[in-house]
Amino acid sequence: MTAIAVADVKKDQKNKTLSGAGLRGQSAGSTALCTVGKTGTGLTYRGYDITDLANHAEFEEVAYLLLKGKLPTQAELDGYKATLKQARGLPQALRLVLEAIPADAHPMDVMRTGCSMLGNLDQERDFSQQAEKTDTLLAMLPAIICYWYRYSHDGVCIDTASSEEDSIGGYFLEMLTDKAPSELHKKVMHCSLILYAEHEFNASTFTARVCASTLSDLHSCVTAAIGSLRGPLHGGANEAAMEMIEQWQSPDEAEAGIMKMLENKEKIMGFGHAIYRESDPRNALIKAWSKKLSEDVGDTHLYAVSERVEAVMKREKDLFCNADFFHASAYHFMDIPTKLFTPIFVMSRVTGWAAHVFEQRANNRIIRPSADYTGPEHQEWVPIEQRD
Amino acid sequence: MTAIAVADVKKDQKNKTLSGAGLRGQSAGSTALCTVGKTGTGLTYRGYDITDLANHAEFEEVAYLLLKGKLPTQAELDGYKATLKQARGLPQALRLVLEAIPADAHPMDVMRTGCSMLGNLDQERDFSQQAEKTDTLLAMLPAIICYWYRYSHDGVCIDTASSEEDSIGGYFLEMLTDKAPSELHKKVMHCSLILYAEHEFNASTFTARVCASTLSDLHSCVTAAIGSLRGPLHGGANEAAMEMIEQWQSPDEAEAGIMKMLENKEKIMGFGHAIYRESDPRNALIKAWSKKLSEDVGDTHLYAVSERVEAVMKREKDLFCNADFFHASAYHFMDIPTKLFTPIFVMSRVTGWAAHVFEQRANNRIIRPSADYTGPEHQEWVPIEQRD
Repeated sequence: MTAIAVADVKKDQKNKTLSGAGLRGQSAGSTALCTVGKTGTGLTYRGYDITDLANHAEFEEVAYLLLKGKLPTQAELDGYKATLKQARGLPQALRLVLEAIPADAHPMDVMRTGCSMLGNLDQERDFSQQAEKTDTLLAMLPAIICYWYRYSHDGVCIDTASSEEDSIGGYFLEMLTDKAPSELHKKVMHCSLILYAEHEFNASTFTARVCASTLSDLHSCVTAAIGSLRGPLHGGANEAAMEMIEQWQSPDEAEAGIMKMLENKEKIMGFGHAIYRESDPRNALIKAWSKKLSEDVGDTHLYAVSERVEAVMKREKDLFCNADFFHASAYHFMDIPTKLFTPIFVMSRVTGWAAHVFEQRANNRIIRPSADYTGPEHQEWVPIEQRD
Repeated sequence: MTAIAVADVKKDQKNKTLSGAGLRGQSAGSTALCTVGKTGTGLTYRGYDITDLANHAEFEEVAYLLLKGKLPTQAELDGYKATLKQARGLPQALRLVLEAIPADAHPMDVMRTGCSMLGNLDQERDFSQQAEKTDTLLAMLPAIICYWYRYSHDGVCIDTASSEEDSIGGYFLEMLTDKAPSELHKKVMHCSLILYAEHEFNASTFTARVCASTLSDLHSCVTAAIGSLRGPLHGGANEAAMEMIEQWQSPDEAEAGIMKMLENKEKIMGFGHAIYRESDPRNALIKAWSKKLSEDVGDTHLYAVSERVEAVMKREKDLFCNADFFHASAYHFMDIPTKLFTPIFVMSRVTGWAAHVFEQRANNRIIRPSADYTGPEHQEWVPIEQRD
């Protein structure tokens, strides 16, 4: 969620025709997975504070927590990582589809199409297969984006089953860059994927639940959710933040730039949130890693620029960074192309989406709201030759 | 919507934990496109009664009404049909994807993947392209399903741009069967596609609107909607009805079968509705065509079986046929394979989905409801070696 949406919320408060729109503040069901902003700041997954998870857990541990309901023992975690590791080989028909997608496609369209195609090849035939199909998706989504990216941009057919790297984040970096990721980078990816894993009834998760409520299959639900995350009001804020901050060569230049943007009422991406009122608890966590990465790569200005933007936005608008803002510089320091930022969000959030699908299925009623009719009253039929 | 869902609604009324679930009866926005069941029976598209539309209009005329806001003049309709006709050729990369999908895939997965792939090849780069991209989708969806079906089932690569048939329904029948459709069959398809075109905030349309509310692209919205329509509580009831009625060789056999199913509390597909309380106005319209087709093909029992099932369900359960029930026999009499019934729904409903996407975009707020938390309270972090 971005500054656009926050501006939108404020505008809506003055706009009667939209008040109550977007189902804001209305309950659309129940969940045991997550709390967002209960005190204005907090985020928990199954009762565990996001700060504990991000500081102590691996991403696969959190995926296990979300999907299987409890934190794993070491043996369970090892087994889970081994399962995921052996599921990374893409079926030939899926590789063929990825090869047919042009280099100028939107990477989220690639993720959506890869997921949908997988549904043809690895169909969930009944709900008893939901855990297994989810694990395969979780394993294959990084392979899908890297296979397409390397094929279309570098002309290379990578072997997605070849890596010995046992973390999803490390595996993604290895497939993308063709070199073993550093320990630092692997830690950052664990934190990043944990922060993005789950966020209650956000628009993409709600999309997945509406789809699940018709008792459709898992691939349909995840494909639909990817489509919603693609929208610039939802995913994509870290990409937009990157495009903004990389224009500036110094904090002073950034401050002047932001002030001008605010004067022109331009959108500033990566700030504010539809639910959080005081701060986004994910910001401090990714910001600390962005700082470490900045030192590691000998960055001369990008981190300082980001900090200045944060300070100016606080001072001028009383707006705080959300999870996306320091993700931009963190990913950039790890040499991840900007256009792959939102696909990383998919690799992570697929855990939350799937957990919500399981929950919806376990206590389902089809999600079918009503609408207020604003159209014309009864229209008399007019034969075509009498129309103008 | 099927008997399952109706039973579900009745069960829900006794079940406090689900009351209010599924957003039933709650407004999730406004629309000028459609009224459903305002008097318990009615259905209007932009104020026009479904009976007038089904009796007098061609499907392309109704598509024009939904997408462009008014009924076309003859010149406008001719121009619109010509535009759709010239957009049926599938890009090579899309054909390649369809060829890679196995014959045992779910046809709705094929539709979803075809639509998603098209998003990579014909991307909607800004919303000014929405009408044009919708027309291309409307033209290509029948081509997508027929190309895959004929390739995977008959081993034939059809030329989807070769037909001179200017109606979407007739074109679909020609591509599927490789022969020119009769006037009767074309008329039935007009009626069928008109009846399925639009239905307010049903689950698939609501999915499309949630996706659109993130400002995502048209192909993401339609892909997501296809995923929701795939679910057996939404699309697919006509397929299930067909599988049921084709078991019976006479009305008496059907009556005995239904009575036994009711005794066993089995689901009877094609009856009842979440919104309509007295009858589904689409039933009489498609039923009349089913009768005509029955006479045309010299059917000895299927129509009579269907009528008996309708009478028994009314007598025993006071439940009425919805739009799906007589669609089963009607499609069957036109030699359409049962597994392609729900894809026909997609070819039609894409008009309603797209019209809702346009409407959502024109007055947007991101759809992001809240949830009631039912999970554990604060959980203390436990290091992995201390877990059991």
